[in-house]
Amino acid sequence: MDGTALSPPRRPWTLRSRSAGPGPSGAAPHPFSWLSQAARARARSGLSRRIVPRPAAEDVLDLAGNDYLGLLRHPRVTAAAEAALRRWGTGAGGSRLVTGDTELHHELERELADFAGTESALVFSSGYTANLAMLTALTARVPGAGADAPAPLLVCDRHNHASLIDAARLARAGGARVELFDHADPAAAARALGSRGSAPGARSLLVSDTVFSVDGDLVDTAALHRAARAAGGALLLDDAHGFGVVGPGGRGALAAAGLSPAPDDVVVSVTLSKALAAQGGAVLGPERVIRHLVETARTFIFDTGLAPASAAAALAALRLLRAEPERARAVRENARLLCDGLRGHGLEATSPDAAVVSVTAPSPDAAVRWRARCLAAGVRVGCFRPPSVPDGRSRLRLTARADLTEAEMHRAVDVIAAGRPG
Amino acid sequence: MDGTALSPPRRPWTLRSRSAGPGPSGAAPHPFSWLSQAARARARSGLSRRIVPRPAAEDVLDLAGNDYLGLLRHPRVTAAAEAALRRWGTGAGGSRLVTGDTELHHELERELADFAGTESALVFSSGYTANLAMLTALTARVPGAGADAPAPLLVCDRHNHASLIDAARLARAGGARVELFDHADPAAAARALGSRGSAPGARSLLVSDTVFSVDGDLVDTAALHRAARAAGGALLLDDAHGFGVVGPGGRGALAAAGLSPAPDDVVVSVTLSKALAAQGGAVLGPERVIRHLVETARTFIFDTGLAPASAAAALAALRLLRAEPERARAVRENARLLCDGLRGHGLEATSPDAAVVSVTAPSPDAAVRWRARCLAAGVRVGCFRPPSVPDGRSRLRLTARADLTEAEMHRAVDVIAAGRPG
Repeated sequence: MDGTALSPPRRPWTLRSRSAGPGPSGAAPHPFSWLSQAARARARSGLSRRIVPRPAAEDVLDLAGNDYLGLLRHPRVTAAAEAALRRWGTGAGGSRLVTGDTELHHELERELADFAGTESALVFSSGYTANLAMLTALTARVPGAGADAPAPLLVCDRHNHASLIDAARLARAGGARVELFDHADPAAAARALGSRGSAPGARSLLVSDTVFSVDGDLVDTAALHRAARAAGGALLLDDAHGFGVVGPGGRGALAAAGLSPAPDDVVVSVTLSKALAAQGGAVLGPERVIRHLVETARTFIFDTGLAPASAAAALAALRLLRAEPERARAVRENARLLCDGLRGHGLEATSPDAAVVSVTAPSPDAAVRWRARCLAAGVRVGCFRPPSVPDGRSRLRLTARADLTEAEMHRAVDVIAAGRPG
Repeated sequence: MDGTALSPPRRPWTLRSRSAGPGPSGAAPHPFSWLSQAARARARSGLSRRIVPRPAAEDVLDLAGNDYLGLLRHPRVTAAAEAALRRWGTGAGGSRLVTGDTELHHELERELADFAGTESALVFSSGYTANLAMLTALTARVPGAGADAPAPLLVCDRHNHASLIDAARLARAGGARVELFDHADPAAAARALGSRGSAPGARSLLVSDTVFSVDGDLVDTAALHRAARAAGGALLLDDAHGFGVVGPGGRGALAAAGLSPAPDDVVVSVTLSKALAAQGGAVLGPERVIRHLVETARTFIFDTGLAPASAAAALAALRLLRAEPERARAVRENARLLCDGLRGHGLEATSPDAAVVSVTAPSPDAAVRWRARCLAAGVRVGCFRPPSVPDGRSRLRLTARADLTEAEMHRAVDVIAAGRPG
């Protein structure tokens, strides 16, 4: 794809307001000229990114998406979304706190909480905004607390998802302290939690993905919970890639760790756009946490409610998963089959705990070319490069689906192996 | 509504992992006990907020939502969303950069840019994430620039929307400087831009809402542009409440100010969830800006693409507006009629430049009770209190729609006047 797909047809460009005010003195650069310089620097590093629109119908085996349970075109999910369009209209119409709150949102929230074993749930328009809400609202100052109240402490896995990182940055801008610990190391997390000293009243929050999105590894959730509790802190998890996939019946990382019903010091965010085949995110946890988010979280208060069709699709997908819990097991088994097949060809593939398998590539450029060869052979895989990889190493990233056939997986493995860099 | 609507039915609560690790020493508080304290403090200040789900069918005149053009249940918009569900499925399936990019997203982007008179456009899952992208990506460091490169400067209206404020906080966390200027004061903006001194290579960006969401006032966009240009800077606008409403045919604040086609140093964000009756947001601007967002904006790269049904609804609404441009004029006229009617009853109402009219209330508590009386009489209005109001004054907030009848507006004015605090 070249840039034309991103923009309307070129036409004579009238810079009519070039003369609208006094120009900058001297030869000052155009305020956006640095963007061209930055684009050239990315190109030199092999880190250019382009969006390539796909058609609705294509003869491609998709191992790049997050439709883990294979529900994105399920007739019951689609029918539920269509019914919601007719019943509720095409949008929520406003913030949930003004007029955008429907009985459908509450129905979805009750069933999400019940499924995950938490007291309560709150739906957001994306997983990104859900994570921003979770970290910023739970590090807010207590009203009336003195200026000398100790700052809340966020202790974060170094490999956390970008949305958790941005959320921690926002929390820090609001006065929280942030400490990082080495990836998937509960002992390091415990040490970082201890760094807050023993100031009475200081809050601490341990923050981690459950299944890490690049390599697909599942953390020791129970160990993280023990570390948080030992420090008198809370545990905040992002279960975007675990919910619907890991644990009994896909109930997520808490259930997988034997933490269901959820302890009262744990909050978890999930996405509705992966296993649940829709759009949006949710925060699940104790009722007082959820009420606090309703009343104070800026990405909840100042954002339009999730579109009813997306809420309905997520709810229908959740009900399908409850009716057919074997879908969760199928996606995990298929990920393992893909991994085994790739290793059988001598490729360096990560051991999947959920749906994600990643395969090491020698360089960003090589990864891009490898992906292109796979696509030309009819198999779409993801290609993760800096800055989307925490360790700087580029890789292909495959995601399994519950509805993959053995023949499809064999074909995918063969195509990926045949396309490997020379 | 009480809290039960937010949570599943109560059941015996098994705190099975209370004993999973060593407890905190002494009588350390539960990590979430402060939330109950914070809730009590909000209640004492009259600032509690609750979400109240609405049913699909109700005999209520809604003057609280943002469905400015009256398209939320338009048959052509609904039909387009239904067709997209069948054609594309219930979700995008992944990040736009992986597998979530469809021809539908590009079609919407081309038509948004063409309508607003910009080179290019990029769609996000919400207006919030669009604003986060716009401000953080455009204040990023130039790759290879020395550590002594001057920090980019964001100059922001004090009353900017929460999403722009959070975006500025994130930009500051990334190294930008942030200066605030007095609301809707281009001269103050110019002075703040001058504060960056004359360091060569320093970028400056003037950031403002166009139509402010609380009082509905439209800024002097052309004056802001002159101020930005005089300083060699760029102008970043949030046109969430202007797009589809102000300017010829609802083409937005740039067109209203005679800045269409858009100057090459202006970027504007819009929402798809207000005039366009869907969900999501977009950034419109020069092609090199849009490409920079595609390649670097974290809320684009690390978020699932907008659901196809929402993209299709927004596109259908945009086409309807182009076919029926009188809708934009109608909503502005109706807002003025509401304002005139309220003032005729001696109420203090803001003069509307777009769809929003606000009416001053004596206190947060009084505003809540006033809204409740209106709703009991069949008219839903918004109620804005701290921290959603930049000046700390609570008010009712009404939004006009293009499809309001004169009888409905008379009824609304009578109900609001009859319910006024004694």
